Amino acid sequence: MNYGIIFYILSSVLEFAGAFMLLPVGVGFFYGEKESFAFLLVAVVSLLAGGLGRLKKPKSKVFYAREGFVTVSLSWILLSLVGAVPFVLTGEIPFYVDAVFETVSGFTTTGGTILGDVEYLSHCTQFWRLFTHWLGGMGVLVLILAILPLSGSYNMHLMRAESTGPSVGKLVPKVKSSARILYEIYIGITVLQILLLLLGGLSLYESATLTFSTVGTGGFGLLNSSVREYSRYVQTVLIIFMLMCGISFNTYYLFLARRPKEALKSEELRAYLLIAAGAAVLIGINARGHFDSLGESLYQALFQVASVMTTTGFTTCDFNMWPMFSKAILFLLMIVGACAGSTGGGLKVSRLVVLLKSVKGEILQVIHPRSVKKLHMDGRGLTAGVIHSIRMYLVLYAGIYLISVLLISVDNFSFETNASAVMAMFNNVGPGFDMVGPVGSYASFSAFSKVVLMFDMLAGRLELLPMLVLFSPRTWKK
Amino acid sequence: MNYGIIFYILSSVLEFAGAFMLLPVGVGFFYGEKESFAFLLVAVVSLLAGGLGRLKKPKSKVFYAREGFVTVSLSWILLSLVGAVPFVLTGEIPFYVDAVFETVSGFTTTGGTILGDVEYLSHCTQFWRLFTHWLGGMGVLVLILAILPLSGSYNMHLMRAESTGPSVGKLVPKVKSSARILYEIYIGITVLQILLLLLGGLSLYESATLTFSTVGTGGFGLLNSSVREYSRYVQTVLIIFMLMCGISFNTYYLFLARRPKEALKSEELRAYLLIAAGAAVLIGINARGHFDSLGESLYQALFQVASVMTTTGFTTCDFNMWPMFSKAILFLLMIVGACAGSTGGGLKVSRLVVLLKSVKGEILQVIHPRSVKKLHMDGRGLTAGVIHSIRMYLVLYAGIYLISVLLISVDNFSFETNASAVMAMFNNVGPGFDMVGPVGSYASFSAFSKVVLMFDMLAGRLELLPMLVLFSPRTWKK
Repeated sequence: MNYGIIFYILSSVLEFAGAFMLLPVGVGFFYGEKESFAFLLVAVVSLLAGGLGRLKKPKSKVFYAREGFVTVSLSWILLSLVGAVPFVLTGEIPFYVDAVFETVSGFTTTGGTILGDVEYLSHCTQFWRLFTHWLGGMGVLVLILAILPLSGSYNMHLMRAESTGPSVGKLVPKVKSSARILYEIYIGITVLQILLLLLGGLSLYESATLTFSTVGTGGFGLLNSSVREYSRYVQTVLIIFMLMCGISFNTYYLFLARRPKEALKSEELRAYLLIAAGAAVLIGINARGHFDSLGESLYQALFQVASVMTTTGFTTCDFNMWPMFSKAILFLLMIVGACAGSTGGGLKVSRLVVLLKSVKGEILQVIHPRSVKKLHMDGRGLTAGVIHSIRMYLVLYAGIYLISVLLISVDNFSFETNASAVMAMFNNVGPGFDMVGPVGSYASFSAFSKVVLMFDMLAGRLELLPMLVLFSPRTWKK
Repeated sequence: MNYGIIFYILSSVLEFAGAFMLLPVGVGFFYGEKESFAFLLVAVVSLLAGGLGRLKKPKSKVFYAREGFVTVSLSWILLSLVGAVPFVLTGEIPFYVDAVFETVSGFTTTGGTILGDVEYLSHCTQFWRLFTHWLGGMGVLVLILAILPLSGSYNMHLMRAESTGPSVGKLVPKVKSSARILYEIYIGITVLQILLLLLGGLSLYESATLTFSTVGTGGFGLLNSSVREYSRYVQTVLIIFMLMCGISFNTYYLFLARRPKEALKSEELRAYLLIAAGAAVLIGINARGHFDSLGESLYQALFQVASVMTTTGFTTCDFNMWPMFSKAILFLLMIVGACAGSTGGGLKVSRLVVLLKSVKGEILQVIHPRSVKKLHMDGRGLTAGVIHSIRMYLVLYAGIYLISVLLISVDNFSFETNASAVMAMFNNVGPGFDMVGPVGSYASFSAFSKVVLMFDMLAGRLELLPMLVLFSPRTWKK
């Protein structure tokens, strides 16, 4: 294991964390809040410590997948541990475990909260809380790759470990340029949504923070009622941008590169839109009795489907009260998740499509043993390796899910609470059902269960292997 | 598709069903019950129809895996449809859908009931109800293979489609002899348990029926309180025989063949006993507050663990009232299930062991990409094909489970009811939690949901592919 380079990259991450924390400091000063000094302190210490750490240049450039996974998971844990400190210093989240939970939930773009009342928070704290979604959405290491003058084999390994989906969206041959293009598109979408929200009458502060939460598919809100109290215009902007950020950013690149045909032939994109539309219609009809008109029911269904499937977690109504069929659809949408290469979580639509194709292939194999059919996606053949690793992913996914449910059940909350809490955390959605439903929170879980759920959030965001490699004893053996 | 041979085998199945139905006729005559005439009528009609059908000898002997799967699933459906008729004729289960549900639950050794009160049933009906467990436990087609003078390629295909576990327990080179040995061991265990129960003071009728339910790992009982009211001696006999029948029958064959070393080196067997013991201890401690002493708590935990893990479903207490951690363990045990080649259901311990090994191998691969390690089980190398098909099995398993939960949620029962009902049906356990807990029943589900659950029971018992092939349109295309 190349400890030198891991230490070097972690120091960079710390510097970045410090630099970004100057943003809430500015917000705090603008609103004349004394809480901003807590952020200033942590920012300065992080910048100093990161800068000092970076002085020690790594001796060896050896960097394999193993180093990539360990670096990425340690970076995310470090970010969360440091990012949580200001919450404790300002006294707004007095317990450190709770503060770390909230920060992990922020960076992993989960958006499940331990706060019962978010409206008493200072502007700088709220800004930081929602900004973590923005940073985590596209990934901090991808950002570092885009900015810092690093080069070498670790670029690809870091990008692969942090990006979402079964294959990495290398847009152009150079990893560094790909990372830069991704962030340019991300910033472009962010600016566009801020402008649209400003047009809707929200303040710059509201527009910016709500946009961070949307484009990172996070789900933290400024109000206790999530986004229920905003105008229909604002809610519609949210639906559009949630759905947009659940699509692979590859798609936008292809559009910008004037290759729209390639963009539109994506089977994943079509499946994604089809599932979202189908789910919205089914829920709209099933939950009809909870609303004044079918139109309203369909609108509310569409909002909640977009929110859950993109794993954002905004809510405009308490879907926990809906009929069980609607809730079961939402539960399945949590698993399906968004597209690979998006800022959303979950299993990813492309994995689902490949699994379905391979299941179909398997049954055909039994029926016609002599016909060997190769599986295709987007016109290209799927290699045995890709199919293999996606099946493996599902095995790991199911295993981690079930063990997590078992572990948090020691708190003795309801079956529905446990099953949906882990589902919502692991897929980075946010709200679940029952105690952790849209009007509930994760506050009542024990510290032990919160640690389990933090692991799930990180494992879900980093797509399992980085966290498993980190916790495998073999990784640390000579 | 070779329709001729499928028709021929289905006719044999019908004849067998008719022949076996003469047993409850005898029981009914002994107790002087008029209900026995219903069984007599169906028995005679089945024997006649089956005999007539068998007159038409199949022209072709062509028989592939496809024919094997279709024949086995159609046989089980036919058995259930016919076996349910007497329940309706006697008026004891007035609705045919309910009667078929009860019969599917019997043959698949699930043991989940739609009856609120089983104590009013006539002796012949109860005998038939519990005898279906015995027939389904080892499999009707395996029995036909053992008895009828059939030969040809279909022997292996039928055995493979009906036996449990990822690989078929061909004990000796000839399929026919293997089937015969399996039934000899099965009958031996059955006789032994009947004798032990007679020693415990039960009547011959009680001993025999309760034994059918135990050795088939079914779970239907004679009393509304399942087996709670029997003596500690009887309950202990049940624990031992449930656990025994959750072990691969291969083990007993090896013992009889004086190869005990081979029998005991089975990794599956060790994992099975270890999981059962670990689960019993954890639950015994966790549910301590529900009992007078720790000893009693451990005993009750052991009973329920043995019952759920072997997918039998007898209960001595209402585990639905236990703490959520204990319930979560039982829920996971439903998935784990018994050993391959036993009469129990579930995913099977051997599949779990292989999955765990392959997960470990996968993580090691990331850490040391250049070290290629072959996976082993019981000292033999695991082929890529076996690992592949087990992963595929999990994909199908998860898919069918989730879709079934979605479908039955239209009935709007609780999350816990739906999630545990499908789990208990699909793994052929019987009781679940909440509405379908030990003191509940499946009666309240709609006919639609009952059909979904019947599919799950059959798919679980026949290990997915037979039912999927049957319902694939491609199977029926020329």
